[in-house]
Amino acid sequence: MPELRHDPVQRRWVIIATERARRPSDFTVERETMGDGKCPFCYGNENMTPPEIRVLRPPDTKPNGPGWKVRVVPNKFPALRIEGELDRRAVGQYDRMNGIGAHEVIIETPQHDKDISDLPLEDIADVLKMYRDRIVDLQKDPRFRYVLVFRNKGSVAGASLAHPHSQVIATPITPRTVAVELESAREHYVAKERCIFCDIIAQELETYSRIVVADPHFVSWCPYASRFPFEVTVAPRKHFHDFGQESDENLFHLARHLREVLQRLRKSLGDPPYNYMLHTSPAYYQKPRRPGYWTTIELDWHWHLEILPRLTKTAGFEWGTGFYINPTPPEDAARFLRDVVI
Amino acid sequence: MPELRHDPVQRRWVIIATERARRPSDFTVERETMGDGKCPFCYGNENMTPPEIRVLRPPDTKPNGPGWKVRVVPNKFPALRIEGELDRRAVGQYDRMNGIGAHEVIIETPQHDKDISDLPLEDIADVLKMYRDRIVDLQKDPRFRYVLVFRNKGSVAGASLAHPHSQVIATPITPRTVAVELESAREHYVAKERCIFCDIIAQELETYSRIVVADPHFVSWCPYASRFPFEVTVAPRKHFHDFGQESDENLFHLARHLREVLQRLRKSLGDPPYNYMLHTSPAYYQKPRRPGYWTTIELDWHWHLEILPRLTKTAGFEWGTGFYINPTPPEDAARFLRDVVI
Repeated sequence: MPELRHDPVQRRWVIIATERARRPSDFTVERETMGDGKCPFCYGNENMTPPEIRVLRPPDTKPNGPGWKVRVVPNKFPALRIEGELDRRAVGQYDRMNGIGAHEVIIETPQHDKDISDLPLEDIADVLKMYRDRIVDLQKDPRFRYVLVFRNKGSVAGASLAHPHSQVIATPITPRTVAVELESAREHYVAKERCIFCDIIAQELETYSRIVVADPHFVSWCPYASRFPFEVTVAPRKHFHDFGQESDENLFHLARHLREVLQRLRKSLGDPPYNYMLHTSPAYYQKPRRPGYWTTIELDWHWHLEILPRLTKTAGFEWGTGFYINPTPPEDAARFLRDVVI
Repeated sequence: MPELRHDPVQRRWVIIATERARRPSDFTVERETMGDGKCPFCYGNENMTPPEIRVLRPPDTKPNGPGWKVRVVPNKFPALRIEGELDRRAVGQYDRMNGIGAHEVIIETPQHDKDISDLPLEDIADVLKMYRDRIVDLQKDPRFRYVLVFRNKGSVAGASLAHPHSQVIATPITPRTVAVELESAREHYVAKERCIFCDIIAQELETYSRIVVADPHFVSWCPYASRFPFEVTVAPRKHFHDFGQESDENLFHLARHLREVLQRLRKSLGDPPYNYMLHTSPAYYQKPRRPGYWTTIELDWHWHLEILPRLTKTAGFEWGTGFYINPTPPEDAARFLRDVVI
């Protein structure tokens, strides 16, 4: 019997279909070849990108030349532009504003063919520290409401280049998905004086059937109402709202944890395309709390990373309803991910 | 300068990116071959599907044999099951219920290689009448809150068979996307005593820059805040909430209108994959109105059809934020669609 499950944070129902594919081998991993011209993210081609915004490189190397370890550049085809005013206006009954924001690329390594999960822990930690740096820096701009760090891997997941990279986008409005999560977390805290994510992590650790990896610092699990097969959420075990304030030490622990999770996904599913998105606390959300609500973002929010392998297609049903059909119960997915030998 | 636009019905922001692809020829239409074994939707293979629920066939033909014109069967791999009780329960802090619902396939024609837009008008009207029949019939079941009719064309859009077909799914909860639209429409009516869709249609007809086809009965336009390039919404010009109560005559007008819109999309974009979804009034929404709200579903809702060509990929940004990057301004899309010679 298929089951409908509700996600208390995203406030979304999901159909866990039991009549369809469920094992990793039931999915065909789609692969498309990406253009293999000159890669703008490789050493020697630094002039193919806009000049670097931030970089990790030895002192004896030149800006915008080879030798760097992690390099951040503006997206050459930005969805949003950094310069200008918002110019909020009505157009008849519609609303518009200028597409002001930041859109950056974090080139994670000079090694074109490596996956992030192949890198040494120190190098993964360097990428995570760069995420932190970009969040802190972009949150200073009062025009931006939210900074999203995300990673598209594989052409099916929307990546246009194979070279390992993440993206950062700063938006002038709080994205709807994040706003829904913030609201759920806030209402939960107001009602119970507990963090909704802490409650979820506690239940997941107790049940254990959906846990993928649990170490003293981080926990990963397949969410109860997973939208996608083999979806995984990663969060710090200890309550903390802001990725931008994470310590170097914790980011090193995260590097180890994330590498294991990504390796388990890769081994189980044959290097699947995926998206991951970091949901940290927004820049300006502390202030406008409703009267009578006794909470702050530090109390009610808990940063987390969502990993979405792209094994199924979204079609008319998902677009028409906003709810999802997931052919693999998350308990099965977690068991496969736990059991695979890496 | 990219522009952020807000959709007042879906309450969603969209980035209209101006630095990226914009003309029809800038998109590569992805094509994947579908399994070309024996087609379960062709004449002679009726035993490959579950028995028919409804059918349009001459009286001298036998049930579940060839000779039919339009045939409705249960989905062989249903996302939801028709038998059983909902069994709503908590699982710790989560909520679940059984996946009760209906999931049907409407086989639109016996002709495997025809597109719906190639069919004679009478045959398209027969398909639309079958949509109406399934909505009316499924809305009688008190377990179902919403009936969604949708069409996935092409493998990229989630179709698993090439033979022309639509799907019907009846869900035990009101889908979130529909709930947001219902709420916007209701609040607009309460504030203004006008239908939000009628207001939009009036503005679109006055501006005209986003109109694709306008005839005395139906209007199609590229929405101001289109999520996807070449997205089109179709609605009756005259206010009406319920597709299930449309007259034969109006469905014939709709067949002519829809055929033109689909032919224009096909000609402009080279037979693109697409999804379309019908948003009609829900079965049970009339009753639970808040006190002080003076409106009914008949007054505030206006049925419409959303057509989403699948030319771009949704990636980490869209999944992480719930907002969309559309590389083609809807004014450009509408002009291409209006100007193409069909």
